[in-house]
Amino acid sequence: VSQQETVETRLKVRYAETDQMAVVHHGNYLPWMEMGRLDWCRARGVRYRDLEERDGVQLAVAEVSVRYHTPARFDDEIVVATRLKLAHPRLVRFLYEIRNAETGDLLASGETAHIFVAPGMKPARLPERYFGVFGIRKRE
Amino acid sequence: VSQQETVETRLKVRYAETDQMAVVHHGNYLPWMEMGRLDWCRARGVRYRDLEERDGVQLAVAEVSVRYHTPARFDDEIVVATRLKLAHPRLVRFLYEIRNAETGDLLASGETAHIFVAPGMKPARLPERYFGVFGIRKRE
Amino acid sequence: VSQQETVETRLKVRYAETDQMAVVHHGNYLPWMEMGRLDWCRARGVRYRDLEERDGVQLAVAEVSVRYHTPARFDDEIVVATRLKLAHPRLVRFLYEIRNAETGDLLASGETAHIFVAPGMKPARLPERYFGVFGIRKRE
Amino acid sequence: VSQQETVETRLKVRYAETDQMAVVHHGNYLPWMEMGRLDWCRARGVRYRDLEERDGVQLAVAEVSVRYHTPARFDDEIVVATRLKLAHPRLVRFLYEIRNAETGDLLASGETAHIFVAPGMKPARLPERYFGVFGIRKRE
Repeated sequence: VSQQETVETRLKVRYAETDQMAVVHHGNYLPWMEMGRLDWCRARGVRYRDLEERDGVQLAVAEVSVRYHTPARFDDEIVVATRLKLAHPRLVRFLYEIRNAETGDLLASGETAHIFVAPGMKPARLPERYFGVFGIRKRE
Repeated sequence: VSQQETVETRLKVRYAETDQMAVVHHGNYLPWMEMGRLDWCRARGVRYRDLEERDGVQLAVAEVSVRYHTPARFDDEIVVATRLKLAHPRLVRFLYEIRNAETGDLLASGETAHIFVAPGMKPARLPERYFGVFGIRKRE
Repeated sequence: VSQQETVETRLKVRYAETDQMAVVHHGNYLPWMEMGRLDWCRARGVRYRDLEERDGVQLAVAEVSVRYHTPARFDDEIVVATRLKLAHPRLVRFLYEIRNAETGDLLASGETAHIFVAPGMKPARLPERYFGVFGIRKRE
Repeated sequence: VSQQETVETRLKVRYAETDQMAVVHHGNYLPWMEMGRLDWCRARGVRYRDLEERDGVQLAVAEVSVRYHTPARFDDEIVVATRLKLAHPRLVRFLYEIRNAETGDLLASGETAHIFVAPGMKPARLPERYFGVFGIRKRE
């Protein structure tokens, strides 16, 4: 996929993800968005596990925002559509749409910002060989 | 407390709340903010359990945003400071500051918006007897 | 499938499921076993959601035991193999084997016992029309 | 406390810990038991964080079993009573009783077994200076 394209992640709502309102607890959308952006990386050719293990680079979460439209419920099929909003050697932003896979209803939309960090949470630059993944141009 | 005042919630980071970055997973701040706003309600004289059970009114989460400044770590003592930003009969907004209780360092700041709903997630008005809790003025 | 057969559930380890030992937190195997038994029910023709909503019958967890052999790690493909151990109109027991899907390594094995309950957690009998699902013989 | 004594951990049930049965999800008792055994260590003079960071020794979970008696509910005050069952230089076992702090009702009882491991999950011996904590006698 090109770095503008949307990558889809499918999952089914787990019983453990509900709360006593009989809907998915709002906090449980964040791991879904995380799955979405890691799948986005994979679709662009990068296993996040390798980025962490081989390159010692991690994608720390700097900001999260979510708008909840319609609640997800136990056993629903969910699609998380993830796309890149912006990328710099130190920062990336992703956008997410979370839909019911059967009805197409928009359940939630979100955005996250991330900084690259080295182990110990020290800010780092993305290694140049990954620039292409995120569509970052090298400086002349 | 007055409805402008900040209410503090104390907790200690659980091992289960960490992830393999060796810090608290960013999703786990949302239950802390939830504890904060329910403690805010309690400090203003309302047990949230009663609101749900007696009045059939729930506080559904409509929006969440969090900025992460410094990661919380296992065994850290945490203080969540919660205050009301705005309240209407259909909507309330809360603000949060999450700090390390020992160092005072700001770990994260957040905001949530909520709508009142009846069982089945139907939008509802807050019953008038709770207007005082949230500092909502009754119309003449 | 017959009620003796094993039903397989596939999942991929989420980043949020790890802890600071850099392996899956031991508590997170329980939702996987839950997914396994709900998939077992589905393979036998029962959507658990319907059992709860239409029949007002829930499967409360009475006992859980897990032995952890080899840790699961982020991004691992996992297979949960679930089979029924025993079923009565008031109680069922399931057995689980959790394996790495690529290597076949046994990661954990578990067992759960459940009682049927009505809303409010009152012990109940499984409705007779579900006896076949669990291979329970009707009394003459 | 002596190593035979019970150590108590207090907590309040979080909304996020409930599921759509309107009780605490059974998986969420495991982090409570974990809090219990880490508090037990602390009461015996060992911060688990130090054990991990200074000594490179971790307490990996080898077995968990829980019996659920009465469900915990949102906002309940909980007491986890933890005691050591058995300790060797390679293995420890803990026992837990989880009660409603107000009524004294037994909600769940559990047991965990742990092996000491070095980073990378390699089995290890507990360093001798910690033998006293767990009441392990040094060989002559």
